[in-house]
Amino acid sequence: MDRLGWTGNFTADGTGSVDRRGRQFSDSEVYKLIEAMAWELGRRPDPTLATELDELTEAVAAAQSPDGYVNTAFGRPGQPGRYTDLASGHELYCTGHLLQAAVARARTGDGGRLLDVARRAADHVCDTFGPDGTPGLCGHPEIETALVELARLTGQRRYLDQAALFVARRGHRSLPPHAFGWSYYSDDIPVRAADVLRGHAVRALYLASGAVDVAVETGDDELLAAVAAQFDRTLARRTYLTGGMGSRHTDEAFGDDFVLPADRAYSETCAGIAAIMLAWRLLLATGESRYGDVIERILFNVVATAISDDGRSFFYANTLHQRTPTRPVPDDEEQLGFGGGPRAPWYEVSCCLPNIARLLASLGTYLATVGDDGLRLHQYADAEIGTRLADGRRVGLAVRTRYPDDGLVLVRITETGAGPWSVTLRVPDWADGATLVVGGERRAVAPGAVEVRREYAVGDEIRLELPVRPRFTVPDPRIDAVRGCVAVERGPVVYCAEATRPGAADTDPDATTTDGGDLDTIRIDPAVVPVDVADGVEVRARFDVPDGARWPYRPPAATSAGPGSVPVRLVPYHRWGRRGPATMRVWLPTT
Amino acid sequence: MDRLGWTGNFTADGTGSVDRRGRQFSDSEVYKLIEAMAWELGRRPDPTLATELDELTEAVAAAQSPDGYVNTAFGRPGQPGRYTDLASGHELYCTGHLLQAAVARARTGDGGRLLDVARRAADHVCDTFGPDGTPGLCGHPEIETALVELARLTGQRRYLDQAALFVARRGHRSLPPHAFGWSYYSDDIPVRAADVLRGHAVRALYLASGAVDVAVETGDDELLAAVAAQFDRTLARRTYLTGGMGSRHTDEAFGDDFVLPADRAYSETCAGIAAIMLAWRLLLATGESRYGDVIERILFNVVATAISDDGRSFFYANTLHQRTPTRPVPDDEEQLGFGGGPRAPWYEVSCCLPNIARLLASLGTYLATVGDDGLRLHQYADAEIGTRLADGRRVGLAVRTRYPDDGLVLVRITETGAGPWSVTLRVPDWADGATLVVGGERRAVAPGAVEVRREYAVGDEIRLELPVRPRFTVPDPRIDAVRGCVAVERGPVVYCAEATRPGAADTDPDATTTDGGDLDTIRIDPAVVPVDVADGVEVRARFDVPDGARWPYRPPAATSAGPGSVPVRLVPYHRWGRRGPATMRVWLPTT
Repeated sequence: MDRLGWTGNFTADGTGSVDRRGRQFSDSEVYKLIEAMAWELGRRPDPTLATELDELTEAVAAAQSPDGYVNTAFGRPGQPGRYTDLASGHELYCTGHLLQAAVARARTGDGGRLLDVARRAADHVCDTFGPDGTPGLCGHPEIETALVELARLTGQRRYLDQAALFVARRGHRSLPPHAFGWSYYSDDIPVRAADVLRGHAVRALYLASGAVDVAVETGDDELLAAVAAQFDRTLARRTYLTGGMGSRHTDEAFGDDFVLPADRAYSETCAGIAAIMLAWRLLLATGESRYGDVIERILFNVVATAISDDGRSFFYANTLHQRTPTRPVPDDEEQLGFGGGPRAPWYEVSCCLPNIARLLASLGTYLATVGDDGLRLHQYADAEIGTRLADGRRVGLAVRTRYPDDGLVLVRITETGAGPWSVTLRVPDWADGATLVVGGERRAVAPGAVEVRREYAVGDEIRLELPVRPRFTVPDPRIDAVRGCVAVERGPVVYCAEATRPGAADTDPDATTTDGGDLDTIRIDPAVVPVDVADGVEVRARFDVPDGARWPYRPPAATSAGPGSVPVRLVPYHRWGRRGPATMRVWLPTT
Repeated sequence: MDRLGWTGNFTADGTGSVDRRGRQFSDSEVYKLIEAMAWELGRRPDPTLATELDELTEAVAAAQSPDGYVNTAFGRPGQPGRYTDLASGHELYCTGHLLQAAVARARTGDGGRLLDVARRAADHVCDTFGPDGTPGLCGHPEIETALVELARLTGQRRYLDQAALFVARRGHRSLPPHAFGWSYYSDDIPVRAADVLRGHAVRALYLASGAVDVAVETGDDELLAAVAAQFDRTLARRTYLTGGMGSRHTDEAFGDDFVLPADRAYSETCAGIAAIMLAWRLLLATGESRYGDVIERILFNVVATAISDDGRSFFYANTLHQRTPTRPVPDDEEQLGFGGGPRAPWYEVSCCLPNIARLLASLGTYLATVGDDGLRLHQYADAEIGTRLADGRRVGLAVRTRYPDDGLVLVRITETGAGPWSVTLRVPDWADGATLVVGGERRAVAPGAVEVRREYAVGDEIRLELPVRPRFTVPDPRIDAVRGCVAVERGPVVYCAEATRPGAADTDPDATTTDGGDLDTIRIDPAVVPVDVADGVEVRARFDVPDGARWPYRPPAATSAGPGSVPVRLVPYHRWGRRGPATMRVWLPTT
């Protein structure tokens, strides 16, 4: 960001003008970087990192106007005026990320300079867009959740009220018409009236996160229920097996229900992170462990997929089917703007990179929560967790596991007071046949939350055995794109076949394939269950040799009759849509 | 176009400046409109239309600079300089459409004013971009085919050479890098080195048309064979059942091989028209009747689909699956810019409308060709056709048919000289079981071209009986998007199911459906062949009632084993692409 000039944007020259670099929203990338650095400092002291963070903080502070406004793309000489392009200028979006960075820094020990900058920026937002100000709205939600977080941290009701106002304002088509429709920025339907997430996926998920924050802090159960129902429907109809969201490249958007093409999956990394944000807020709001399942699925199949082993390249979009061989990661900087590769070192729009950074740096905060009377474990990883219960007792436990490589999770009590308390564990939705062993007693546990309440002693052990083994999964028959397919999962992890040489699937080198193993001709035998092998999971397949037909559509082979049918009349394709509003399909799935 | 100011753009004020309206390429729409008017005048005299055409011609002539340059978006006061944005400015593209309009006008009887404007514009292009000029290239092909057509009309070799130069220049990445890659404007691979059409579909198809023109006129058989092979592969792997091309909205582009989603089909109307242009040129170049099949398929399933019955609204993109009910055609002009509807009255980018107009106005020119020794019929419609054979004999015939409603085509000789000559008829690729009756003699004919050579007398009749009846068609198994589906065709016409009330497919009103007939739950019984009924074609289907699952992926039901498989190893999805260039899929089709 230094090299690209994005951090330098905060430094104006003597005349107040700046040779600005990057897109309008590049400030937000700097703020997300600061947030990541703040979380990282919370994990371990690092004087060098702390100095860098302080320097960035001073640069931001220096760019802040006396009235609290701070944005490097608007309001300076030669730039458009403040808030002259709310629909696409990303000003409030950037401010939101500034607030989140300051909250992160305060939560990791420094509630000073950056928090002061953020409060003044937030005050300026409230002054400008409050009940007595302009009834404006940012084209990209983000400010809503940030204001609530700042309200939580500072106790300032004003920020919460402003967030609630932004949420209430959305959905009334007050933003200008967008070529992709008002749904693009969720301004088509009021938040509490919608029934599913739609439009630009990151926008929709950030807005929903802010709405849950507002609902929880204001006791607005109706709003909470509305957003929870929207997310339920989104999970049931608009989510990839990986937990990825967004099936349209054109507008980076959710598709219609069940439009989930594997090969054209957008599944933006940022949308995955935004869905984790939403699921986490719903988990905290409702206590339902199934939201932990969603977080786990996205962590293992979107976030973990997006980044390269060396952390130097990433996927912006996460396809579920790659038909042509990917290109190598480019190593020259001229290609920075173009992405490509299997993973790309940079994009001109590099929102995903600092988003990954801030998520990974704060990952520890997603493992567990404390309630009035116990601890709840939501994700499984080696961890030492200590906290104080509502009654003041200090409790602690250690988690040891190789999950998800295997399904054994060991929880050992490391600190406890007198009297009973609870340890609650999440049994994932896929874990049919899980077992819990407590005090030598073994019992089957069903997916959901399992509470172990007792008078603990230090050294007591809870042993959760999850049935991590390969399994086939089939899609809802309404997902046209993957009809007639199976996927393989193992615990929370989605598997794939890969061919690393042109036209050669990763088959057993001792076996004979007749056609080189083109992945687009692979046919899995679903009767042979997948099994663990040394480097992955093994299934049985054959490869259909394609013919060289000139036209890829042909008469069918004979098939058998099915019962219970009713007559359906068809019309010529070119006749469709002439008799009024209609749904339509050319391809008709068979019985 | 008058109301939007696109025609007015040609009129500058006293200072030479103009308050210009529309996109950079709006000149081309005016030229396509002129071309359509010219073809229409060729069909029938119309003084009012002729006057309008003359007025438009004068406006264009008035806007032409003394050196021949004409474009309303560049080169005037306050506008960017000429040819300062070849990649996206569409200047040569617009000039190409001017040339095509002038050629059409000359071919329909007026080789005067407009042709003069076009020749001077073409001369300016040759002066600027010729062997001694700038080695430039337009981001949107079109000038190539237009220059060859002008060369054919005028006999000026210079125009042909310039077209050949433009074709040879393309594919060397001389245009600036594009966010969608150089393939977006077919500048990634030299025309004669490519093996398939790719990138922006209209660009690719216009370029290929120009390349065929160049190849034919220069005797460049290698170039012709290369483009023919590219089109073959495009037809076999990148074309919808409708003949539509382009499966990506994002870049209006061809997808990878077999990426042909029905619900996200782009299948732009202009791409269909461009494919007709290419197929027609290949038909003329090779004589192969199968290109007539392609034209027929696109005419009946793309072009005929695109336009409304009243000719006042149209599809820009032609989806093959509409999941949510379409909206009514808006009748207020405020919605002009946004499209929508089942068909839209206007788009800001309205390239398709005048393209449809010029195609429909010239449709008669696609019916037949004359060779050295006979007539060939390529499309079947009522027609009177008269021409002169190479030896000077005048011949003529009349066609009477209700095709494609039924398959009977009657050809009657209306004029003939002494000695034998040929009438050659196209038997479409789908027409297994066609019959020909000549002189009372009946014989089976196979798909392809059937030549009837004899000494004709006026009144002789040729009777072609094509087996027009409903049939099922299945897709290549590599088209993931429609696996497990059938389509219904009848002759060259693709059918679809339609539900004109929410959730209610067009089922027999006397029959009982249990769930309202949601088209996304329709399951066709492929064992019951479709049959003709009064208003269309009838198939048998049932409707699966979906369950209310929270997550649309689940364990499979038991299935039976398949033989001949080899082991395939899978890796976790988040591991893919880490071992070098790879292909990949998550969903694995079953045996």
